[in-house]
Amino acid sequence: MSHMSKNKTKLIARVRRLRGQLEAIERALEADEPCGAILNQVASVRGAVTGLTAELIEDHIRNHVADPDTDDDPERARGAADLIEVMRTYLK
Amino acid sequence: MSHMSKNKTKLIARVRRLRGQLEAIERALEADEPCGAILNQVASVRGAVTGLTAELIEDHIRNHVADPDTDDDPERARGAADLIEVMRTYLK
Amino acid sequence: MSHMSKNKTKLIARVRRLRGQLEAIERALEADEPCGAILNQVASVRGAVTGLTAELIEDHIRNHVADPDTDDDPERARGAADLIEVMRTYLK
Amino acid sequence: MSHMSKNKTKLIARVRRLRGQLEAIERALEADEPCGAILNQVASVRGAVTGLTAELIEDHIRNHVADPDTDDDPERARGAADLIEVMRTYLK
Repeated sequence: MSHMSKNKTKLIARVRRLRGQLEAIERALEADEPCGAILNQVASVRGAVTGLTAELIEDHIRNHVADPDTDDDPERARGAADLIEVMRTYLK
Repeated sequence: MSHMSKNKTKLIARVRRLRGQLEAIERALEADEPCGAILNQVASVRGAVTGLTAELIEDHIRNHVADPDTDDDPERARGAADLIEVMRTYLK
Repeated sequence: MSHMSKNKTKLIARVRRLRGQLEAIERALEADEPCGAILNQVASVRGAVTGLTAELIEDHIRNHVADPDTDDDPERARGAADLIEVMRTYLK
Repeated sequence: MSHMSKNKTKLIARVRRLRGQLEAIERALEADEPCGAILNQVASVRGAVTGLTAELIEDHIRNHVADPDTDDDPERARGAADLIEVMRTYLK
């Protein structure tokens, strides 16, 4: 079973929250709300998608490439740990 | 009338396309599709949101701060032109 | 006098620190240090350059386009304030 | 031997080019050059560091975690291939 299947409910809820943010932007556009407010809503959707992407990438590394905590090859485990660390710095 | 109101139809269509991409991700999660495919769908939503954000920021500069093509203050027009240029390099 | 000239000493010190980080990466490569450490050094240089870029963009808006705190045109001041706010969200 | 050691000469040359870009920014600050030009130099350093980071991450995956082209575990090879693909979309 893939990590996404295991976390399906949590991930679907998160994607729905993102859809909700986009629906709010659509309503704001319809209501001619001030641009500054809409700009900030779009920028925060980007932040939320960036966060989701970062989490999915880390889960993917652990579940489908190498898990630093359980891999029986110490060099691969070390490589995966370094990769996860740099991704966190990078995708902050 | 704000630039967003002027481009309302176009912007709403674009936000709807983003919602459609998120709905597709939701269906893929429901159907336990391979993680790699879902990961790429999420990464491309991020790219699309980044593109939308960059366009809205440029429109905002031109419509609510200073338009390099029409501003009557040459220094401000120059400053706005530089700002738009660096934003394009940055938000590519 | 441009904002960069006013802050010249501070900015040059900051650029020198970035150069120092790159010199450290060069030494690490020469000494065949572990990839994970070098990867993290490069990722943190990127973070530092991102931070510097964000500050210079905000200074540029205030000094060469419109300063929300002093501009005599209320709509432009509002537009500049919104722009700075979204840039902070975006360039975090 | 790590991938960074194998590509040492190439990587050191690339880091030196980045240092050269920073030295040019330092000279531009010293000479009070126009802010727009300096802003763009800093934004392009960020682009260059982003490109270097992306390449090092991919090399790290292939050399220290799992190489999609040679790994004897098909699921891990598939996972690594998906990871590299999403990183390219993400770090573009």
